[in-house]
Amino acid sequence: MSELRRDPICGRWVIVDTDHPNKPEDFEYEPHIIRGGACPFCYGSEAMTPPEIEAIRQPGTQPNTPGWQVRVVANKFPALQVEGELDRRGDGIYDLSNGVGAHEVLVEAPYHHKDIPDLLNSEIENFISMYCRRASDLIKDKRFKYVLLFKNFGAAAGASLEHPHTQIVALPMVPKSVMEEIKGAHSYFEYRERCVFCDIIKQETQEKERIILENKHFISFCPYVSRFPFEIWIMPKKHSGYFIQMTPEEIPALASILKETIAKLKKIFVNVSYNFIVHTSPINGDGFAEGYHWHIEFMPKLMRVAGFEWGTGFYIVPTPPEMAAKYLRES
Amino acid sequence: MSELRRDPICGRWVIVDTDHPNKPEDFEYEPHIIRGGACPFCYGSEAMTPPEIEAIRQPGTQPNTPGWQVRVVANKFPALQVEGELDRRGDGIYDLSNGVGAHEVLVEAPYHHKDIPDLLNSEIENFISMYCRRASDLIKDKRFKYVLLFKNFGAAAGASLEHPHTQIVALPMVPKSVMEEIKGAHSYFEYRERCVFCDIIKQETQEKERIILENKHFISFCPYVSRFPFEIWIMPKKHSGYFIQMTPEEIPALASILKETIAKLKKIFVNVSYNFIVHTSPINGDGFAEGYHWHIEFMPKLMRVAGFEWGTGFYIVPTPPEMAAKYLRES
Repeated sequence: MSELRRDPICGRWVIVDTDHPNKPEDFEYEPHIIRGGACPFCYGSEAMTPPEIEAIRQPGTQPNTPGWQVRVVANKFPALQVEGELDRRGDGIYDLSNGVGAHEVLVEAPYHHKDIPDLLNSEIENFISMYCRRASDLIKDKRFKYVLLFKNFGAAAGASLEHPHTQIVALPMVPKSVMEEIKGAHSYFEYRERCVFCDIIKQETQEKERIILENKHFISFCPYVSRFPFEIWIMPKKHSGYFIQMTPEEIPALASILKETIAKLKKIFVNVSYNFIVHTSPINGDGFAEGYHWHIEFMPKLMRVAGFEWGTGFYIVPTPPEMAAKYLRES
Repeated sequence: MSELRRDPICGRWVIVDTDHPNKPEDFEYEPHIIRGGACPFCYGSEAMTPPEIEAIRQPGTQPNTPGWQVRVVANKFPALQVEGELDRRGDGIYDLSNGVGAHEVLVEAPYHHKDIPDLLNSEIENFISMYCRRASDLIKDKRFKYVLLFKNFGAAAGASLEHPHTQIVALPMVPKSVMEEIKGAHSYFEYRERCVFCDIIKQETQEKERIILENKHFISFCPYVSRFPFEIWIMPKKHSGYFIQMTPEEIPALASILKETIAKLKKIFVNVSYNFIVHTSPINGDGFAEGYHWHIEFMPKLMRVAGFEWGTGFYIVPTPPEMAAKYLRES
């Protein structure tokens, strides 16, 4: 019999197939194939992108020329635009507002062909530091209530460009799914006076069966209520609502666990595409919760989401997270 | 500048690209290609499926033999199983229960190669009647709180079998996304003493710009707050919370609008894959809302959902629904 599991944060149910679980070889996923060709994110193509917003560069090199390690530019096709006011208004029974926000692209490294496991730890630390710098800069704009950092790697994960990059979107409202998490964590905190994420860390590090890796500052694990097979969460051990408040010691620890976790995944699923999303607290006054705890949710693209998931918000998970974590630990 | 739109039911925001909208030819979708081969849902393969639960058959033919027009069998790989009790319990801070439920497959017609637009109206009426019969039967089981009907057509939409079919899942709890809709509709009803869906129908039939088709009993339209390009909702004009309470006159009207709407879509997007989901009220006492109104949500698979959508619950829609509806009306 399968198992129904309920997540303690949002109350989402998933159906875990404990009876006939999928092994890694049972997944037919679309591998990420690098086709090459002209790339606006490679050295020498700097003129193909909008002007540089910020970069980490070799001393003496000029903006919008080679010599950078991490480079941030405005998205050429932004979902939202920085200029203007929100101007929220009605349209009969509907509501609308102008698409005000920011949409930046962070090129993680100059290498077209290198995914995170192929980078040096120091290179990963560089782009994580830049995540923090850009988010810290964007929250100064009081119109923005949330800064979202996410990565689509590979066409199957929705990436339209091959060269590894992260997107940064500043939004004028707190997104629905973030608000659900914040509210869920807040209810738990009100009732238990404890952070639900800290409690998850406690249970996971005790039980160990869903843990993939652990270092001084972080754990990576397959969540009890995974929505996707081989879903992975990376969570700081220290309670903190804000990604950007990471300490200088935490950044290398995050770089290291991120690199090793993805390396393990890609040993099992060669050239797999993936998404990851930084979950952090809202900014500028909206929706702060004492019981919230930032983390990264990582989703390899092994399956397609179908009608059942769209119709219910439920997920059917063909590989129990305990089994996924075991494969990952041993890979 | 793009537009942010908020849906009046759940409060979900979407970003509509009104500036550089995608035209139909801008989408690179994965076409549904029929490969053929042995099919458990074709005439003569009845023994390849679990035994027939119910069928519409030519008089004199036996169950589990050819001669059927619509055939319902248990899912060979069910997500949930009919036997047993729910037995909800804790696992540290987590919750789980047995995977109790029902998972049936409704083979819509004997033809491997015919999608809904290729069927006779009477054939579509047959399978819609069977939807109602199966749902009416499943709600007799008091353990079930929701009956979900959904269709995955084509591999890009998550279908693992080519032969057109609908899945029926009876769940022991009301799914999260259904509950959100019910609650949203209820809040609107409490405040305005009107059904939000009836108000949507009123505004859409007046403004007409998002309408695709209309007949005596139904409208099909691209919703103001579409999450996906060319998303379509089909909604009964008569206020009713329950799909299964359709009147005998409504069934042919639904068959006709469903057929013609999908035909129009497939003229623009040849061999497109799609999902549709019947949204209806919960059963057996849980979560009924006076202001709820059943409808069908139809989503062609033209794009992939990526990190932004997973991270926010927001959607970026590259084609405004007004433009999509115009293309569909004129196709």
